[in-house]
Amino acid sequence: MNDLHARLDLQRRERLGMVEAVWGEHKTTEQIVEVLKKLEVAGELALVTRVAPEKAEELKSSFEMAEFHSQARCITVGKPAELKPSLGEVVVLTGGMSDLVVASEAELALRWHGVKVELLLDVGVAGLHRLLHKLERLKRTKVLIACAGMEGALPTVLAGLVPQPVIGVPVSVGYGVSALGRTALEGMLASCAPGLVVVNIDNGYGAAMAALRILKA
Amino acid sequence: MNDLHARLDLQRRERLGMVEAVWGEHKTTEQIVEVLKKLEVAGELALVTRVAPEKAEELKSSFEMAEFHSQARCITVGKPAELKPSLGEVVVLTGGMSDLVVASEAELALRWHGVKVELLLDVGVAGLHRLLHKLERLKRTKVLIACAGMEGALPTVLAGLVPQPVIGVPVSVGYGVSALGRTALEGMLASCAPGLVVVNIDNGYGAAMAALRILKA
Amino acid sequence: MNDLHARLDLQRRERLGMVEAVWGEHKTTEQIVEVLKKLEVAGELALVTRVAPEKAEELKSSFEMAEFHSQARCITVGKPAELKPSLGEVVVLTGGMSDLVVASEAELALRWHGVKVELLLDVGVAGLHRLLHKLERLKRTKVLIACAGMEGALPTVLAGLVPQPVIGVPVSVGYGVSALGRTALEGMLASCAPGLVVVNIDNGYGAAMAALRILKA
Amino acid sequence: MNDLHARLDLQRRERLGMVEAVWGEHKTTEQIVEVLKKLEVAGELALVTRVAPEKAEELKSSFEMAEFHSQARCITVGKPAELKPSLGEVVVLTGGMSDLVVASEAELALRWHGVKVELLLDVGVAGLHRLLHKLERLKRTKVLIACAGMEGALPTVLAGLVPQPVIGVPVSVGYGVSALGRTALEGMLASCAPGLVVVNIDNGYGAAMAALRILKA
Amino acid sequence: MNDLHARLDLQRRERLGMVEAVWGEHKTTEQIVEVLKKLEVAGELALVTRVAPEKAEELKSSFEMAEFHSQARCITVGKPAELKPSLGEVVVLTGGMSDLVVASEAELALRWHGVKVELLLDVGVAGLHRLLHKLERLKRTKVLIACAGMEGALPTVLAGLVPQPVIGVPVSVGYGVSALGRTALEGMLASCAPGLVVVNIDNGYGAAMAALRILKA
Amino acid sequence: MNDLHARLDLQRRERLGMVEAVWGEHKTTEQIVEVLKKLEVAGELALVTRVAPEKAEELKSSFEMAEFHSQARCITVGKPAELKPSLGEVVVLTGGMSDLVVASEAELALRWHGVKVELLLDVGVAGLHRLLHKLERLKRTKVLIACAGMEGALPTVLAGLVPQPVIGVPVSVGYGVSALGRTALEGMLASCAPGLVVVNIDNGYGAAMAALRILKA
Amino acid sequence: MNDLHARLDLQRRERLGMVEAVWGEHKTTEQIVEVLKKLEVAGELALVTRVAPEKAEELKSSFEMAEFHSQARCITVGKPAELKPSLGEVVVLTGGMSDLVVASEAELALRWHGVKVELLLDVGVAGLHRLLHKLERLKRTKVLIACAGMEGALPTVLAGLVPQPVIGVPVSVGYGVSALGRTALEGMLASCAPGLVVVNIDNGYGAAMAALRILKA
Amino acid sequence: MNDLHARLDLQRRERLGMVEAVWGEHKTTEQIVEVLKKLEVAGELALVTRVAPEKAEELKSSFEMAEFHSQARCITVGKPAELKPSLGEVVVLTGGMSDLVVASEAELALRWHGVKVELLLDVGVAGLHRLLHKLERLKRTKVLIACAGMEGALPTVLAGLVPQPVIGVPVSVGYGVSALGRTALEGMLASCAPGLVVVNIDNGYGAAMAALRILKA
Repeated sequence: MNDLHARLDLQRRERLGMVEAVWGEHKTTEQIVEVLKKLEVAGELALVTRVAPEKAEELKSSFEMAEFHSQARCITVGKPAELKPSLGEVVVLTGGMSDLVVASEAELALRWHGVKVELLLDVGVAGLHRLLHKLERLKRTKVLIACAGMEGALPTVLAGLVPQPVIGVPVSVGYGVSALGRTALEGMLASCAPGLVVVNIDNGYGAAMAALRILKA
Repeated sequence: MNDLHARLDLQRRERLGMVEAVWGEHKTTEQIVEVLKKLEVAGELALVTRVAPEKAEELKSSFEMAEFHSQARCITVGKPAELKPSLGEVVVLTGGMSDLVVASEAELALRWHGVKVELLLDVGVAGLHRLLHKLERLKRTKVLIACAGMEGALPTVLAGLVPQPVIGVPVSVGYGVSALGRTALEGMLASCAPGLVVVNIDNGYGAAMAALRILKA
Repeated sequence: MNDLHARLDLQRRERLGMVEAVWGEHKTTEQIVEVLKKLEVAGELALVTRVAPEKAEELKSSFEMAEFHSQARCITVGKPAELKPSLGEVVVLTGGMSDLVVASEAELALRWHGVKVELLLDVGVAGLHRLLHKLERLKRTKVLIACAGMEGALPTVLAGLVPQPVIGVPVSVGYGVSALGRTALEGMLASCAPGLVVVNIDNGYGAAMAALRILKA
Repeated sequence: MNDLHARLDLQRRERLGMVEAVWGEHKTTEQIVEVLKKLEVAGELALVTRVAPEKAEELKSSFEMAEFHSQARCITVGKPAELKPSLGEVVVLTGGMSDLVVASEAELALRWHGVKVELLLDVGVAGLHRLLHKLERLKRTKVLIACAGMEGALPTVLAGLVPQPVIGVPVSVGYGVSALGRTALEGMLASCAPGLVVVNIDNGYGAAMAALRILKA
Repeated sequence: MNDLHARLDLQRRERLGMVEAVWGEHKTTEQIVEVLKKLEVAGELALVTRVAPEKAEELKSSFEMAEFHSQARCITVGKPAELKPSLGEVVVLTGGMSDLVVASEAELALRWHGVKVELLLDVGVAGLHRLLHKLERLKRTKVLIACAGMEGALPTVLAGLVPQPVIGVPVSVGYGVSALGRTALEGMLASCAPGLVVVNIDNGYGAAMAALRILKA
Repeated sequence: MNDLHARLDLQRRERLGMVEAVWGEHKTTEQIVEVLKKLEVAGELALVTRVAPEKAEELKSSFEMAEFHSQARCITVGKPAELKPSLGEVVVLTGGMSDLVVASEAELALRWHGVKVELLLDVGVAGLHRLLHKLERLKRTKVLIACAGMEGALPTVLAGLVPQPVIGVPVSVGYGVSALGRTALEGMLASCAPGLVVVNIDNGYGAAMAALRILKA
Repeated sequence: MNDLHARLDLQRRERLGMVEAVWGEHKTTEQIVEVLKKLEVAGELALVTRVAPEKAEELKSSFEMAEFHSQARCITVGKPAELKPSLGEVVVLTGGMSDLVVASEAELALRWHGVKVELLLDVGVAGLHRLLHKLERLKRTKVLIACAGMEGALPTVLAGLVPQPVIGVPVSVGYGVSALGRTALEGMLASCAPGLVVVNIDNGYGAAMAALRILKA
Repeated sequence: MNDLHARLDLQRRERLGMVEAVWGEHKTTEQIVEVLKKLEVAGELALVTRVAPEKAEELKSSFEMAEFHSQARCITVGKPAELKPSLGEVVVLTGGMSDLVVASEAELALRWHGVKVELLLDVGVAGLHRLLHKLERLKRTKVLIACAGMEGALPTVLAGLVPQPVIGVPVSVGYGVSALGRTALEGMLASCAPGLVVVNIDNGYGAAMAALRILKA
């Protein structure tokens, strides 16, 4: 009587040009498998984000087409879209090594939509020369995604140096006042650099979809 | 001995392609006039944001080239840049009438950089038909800026309906839990719509500069 | 000397027309069993909410009349009240699959009091067509309970579309700013839709009892 | 070119059965007058909430049909709907004298929709006998709206005593931890009384519309 | 070279009349044993609060004179002080069963100082009759300690009914807005009942020492 | 029809032994005068707290028996109760000059109930010798009320030095993190000194009533 | 009977080597004059911080030896200490013009203690070249005080570039999430630059005294 | 193609005079080993902070030159720098035993840079005599680091007693309002003692680097 099954938004690809993504964190393995099977039947690609390694093991044993990307904590089903160089390139930067999971989620999500994307790690503002040395390279990119935890100053400094769209992604690393990513988030929102935009803490996937919207605009 | 005078970032136009903007709220009239005079000498346009009507009166009396835009609470000096239709068009939407000041700040800042821009007011989600009736029009726009206070759901609903870049601007109208714009801000960051980006509360100027970065990307 | 035993509010059914409910989360298995035995002696039904699966196993082994409803994380003792169709029907909606536990708690609590109730899952506002397709069905319901995490916009959109009582239940799913359900809660409280009421985060049982009060009013 | 005029939701009365209400606090006098004139042309009643006395004076001088209700800080245009006794009665309670403005807003909004409504002031829980003396009267009411600031315990105590729908309205009176109404709000949400529902701080109008939805359900 | 050993405040008993208490939660078993041995050498009683059952087992195996009080999560060494009836009696009340640990900590700490003390459980305000039935008994007590989680209204209602000192202890039970005891704490601080005093969340020991100060005043 | 008049709790003096106190901040002059007249008719004393000087002027002109105590921002009607030396003495301490209003409110409220009370100003912990010089005097007092803003350490240091009841009153002076008194409040609650109790920010009256309850216990 | 007069900490100069400073914001003009007269009698210098211009006027008319420094919002009495070049030099930097008041308070406080100090304004990180151009100059300074509002990234970038002590002073300029200086404060505390220390929001005086402690160490 | 390897800031020692430190908490064992190997190749010392014992075991088994300091939860590689007595001495104080981990991190980091450093434990303000007895010793130190949890009053009291630089380190021990170290942090920032500086919660390493900057200034 009750309709307890997942109501997929299969029009999303048509309406927004995006692959159906499943947020894996608060779902049971059974719920995720059910969704993936429906997507497979519908001939859709799938991207499942925020999957812990243990859950990934369970998923792969019940649905063997699932592929786990451990660095990005994501599951995919199907092959990534063909590369579309005409869309332009995205660079994903991180302040430190601890931001790698979030940056990898963004990188994978873009690659899955056929976008050329590069990762540039460990260019935090406490050692500014590391960023300044890459500046000419960065000025040739179409969109920049900057992931940073702690005080989150990287996107601010970056957006003061280059004219392109910069998307800040606060990362929940740190301790004390920075433990949950709030400080990085608010630092990016309060930024004195004009035109910096921000997504939710740890939301690599969201930053990737924002970049995709921009590349297609 | 001390160098107390404003250190203008006159390279900003060259570096970022943006007019020098002065944040007027916490500066004295004297400080603003000093900056405007320097910009005039340098042959630069100027945009002063967040100017209360009383301060605007004072400013105009000491610096008569200043023009006050009361709806946007902004002062400009000089003429806006020539319209560049090739950049594409921006629409600035609001949930209610009370979001008008913020939306007007965004609209003025874009117009001042030569961007074609239109305002669309009062399309909040409590009366959804008002937004749905405009959907075809909105799908033909290059970038959307959605200003909303209270629960701030407009950008979420919009970004679920159209594939373009959507920039959410939380507005500090409301009372109780929504009094300072925090709830609208966090609702936009937590949005279930993929790829929505956000700027600081009431930051119409920042949303405009983000749109400009996108249009030029 | 000290009176350490549970002081049941056995007059609750008479005073408020509600089954004695036990909040299971912060109680030991021993405390819950003691309460259930007293209720059994008194000839009362019992509903224990927020019971983790492990605790449920322990409970069932010490008190075999206990029945565990895993989807709702609830224990019941005794049979549900007879269905009273004259009270009218309630629909419990969710924005996503991750809201299922909370919605099921509400559904179970209503069914246990003899109320006709239906679940409608996955009608979140990022894919608005899913909700709009069900609108005529929803307009024929007496009370609506809308469960949503993240930005929590579903109850706002719903209350702008239908004239019935809408009870919003914020759900603690999400991450970053939405991790604990605060953003959904405050978004519902700040809602621009007139007459939306709200209960505590994850409080499916409370929403059900509010609906029951309304049905009996 | 830009469409800067208020986009009224004139279908609201038809869709939701509610009079168009205008939130007066963050609007200019000119904006409110424009809306009121449109409503007059459309033959609609109007209720403007959160109007300071000074703004009310200005409004009445530009739009003489406006009537100011000083105790509720509201402006109305037109006559209230005819009393519909069949809907049932609402009682609006307050913990203290300082909650009067909020309670009066609720009372006026209900009266304007033809609902029988009574105010009962100063029955806070620090002198419990005042509430207990009125209990039999309250049990004969269809819906109760309880306004309270400070610790906000009144709705909790009330909902433990009577079986009807109780709508809690936190009020922003108090100082220190209770200054902005947050403590009262969270106390009502955290309430140990089953089925209490809550609206935003100071939202007397919202509580009234919730009561109206219930009366019509 | 460094002096890493615990610097006991052995003058505390003389200065404040209180047994040396050790806060056990963030200390290692080794640190606690070291302190207890020093106290034993000094001929002092000891009370260790907030000891998890596992740590208690370890402690008892390395220091066999330690006695664990599981309901209060406390370790004691030595016998309690002789009962001093002339000090007067304290009653410790709780709103619900889940407040038992905190109330027991208060009760144990008082008993250890020779104070006559009684526990009265489950008299929360959602079923007010349970408290009203005990009123005459409570009026004969010298000091009242009221422990409550969720909205924390019990101390407010109590302090409105009796003239004695009432010490409110907020308890970290609940979920959503009440999860960490903040709402109960702030509700007690914001209380409309005159002269209610409050201690930190879950601080049963602190409430007991406050009562002891009062009894000796 | 509606009963809009103040419902005085005239049994308070009998029930709790306290003078009826009126919280003046959020009440209009008319509301306060109405209450004072009723109290006068009933032959009761009255104490109105938190009255700004301007409102005090208005009050005195409509109700000439009102006496304004400017340092405490309070209005009284009638003479204070006769001094009852047997109750014992209270000392009210402050960390700095800026805490004077709150300390004076406490001192006045106690004096009005016949309690012997003394003020001791400017003994903050940044110049510890000022407090240590008064220690012998303080040890002869029955109850201590310590008012402090900023980091609020005075009650902690005091409660570590003397065995009597110490009531901490956080004061909303300071700036930045201490602006609203929150930091002082939480510092007092988190205190490492055993048995310190706390009232709401700026609540001098509440501290006085707590002291009165203790003196009478 | 009560000792209501200011208890000056006249030993502070001897104990800490600091001039007696009076925090002017929450004191009445009368209280400040009383203190200044006592200090004059004692032959002490005085520095009064956070004095609004109107209050400064009043002060100067009752105590004509007072000198007002409008840019720093401070009053001084007496001449500054003789310059002690051997202590070394301090530079006070600001991110923007709006930080001038706070920076000037620091500069004045240092100058009053005989410290050589220089102001360097408008070197915020959104235009990084302005800071990099001054780097050699800054490396020759003994202590750096960096004042910044909004996201507060200046001290982080600075402390990554130079080895000296850097004291961050968050400034309460900005709007939305940065309105009260919290974001700048937490960004400085969460900084990825090692060894950055922080004082309270707007606390220019405190930063100066920290620098003085360092210079004398 | 992507450059996923750690980008060490090997110029840090030259630029800032500090050993490369690795924040170990959010890094995998593999990431840390990779960094340590690079540092070894570069001939650099290394200090890894915030390493849990389990991770330390793993690290030592893959990189046997790693030495684990369990009390400070740190890993070091290489020998500490030679002692430089001319820099002057630092004392690290704690309020209680539970602050030991944080104090030890500070002590180790200083020792590793060749600084003479001493630990002084358990001198919290609730038993003030313990601190006062050490005062003469403390006055002979060059820099003081004071670690404290709960209300965090130790650095305030200390900075009121001695003229040297005092660095406050809030510690995340406590429960209720002090659970996460926020209260200690804000108490130190709001301190009434002039010139106290603060670092992030639990940031012993940061305090040590601040002390190092001061010693070298």
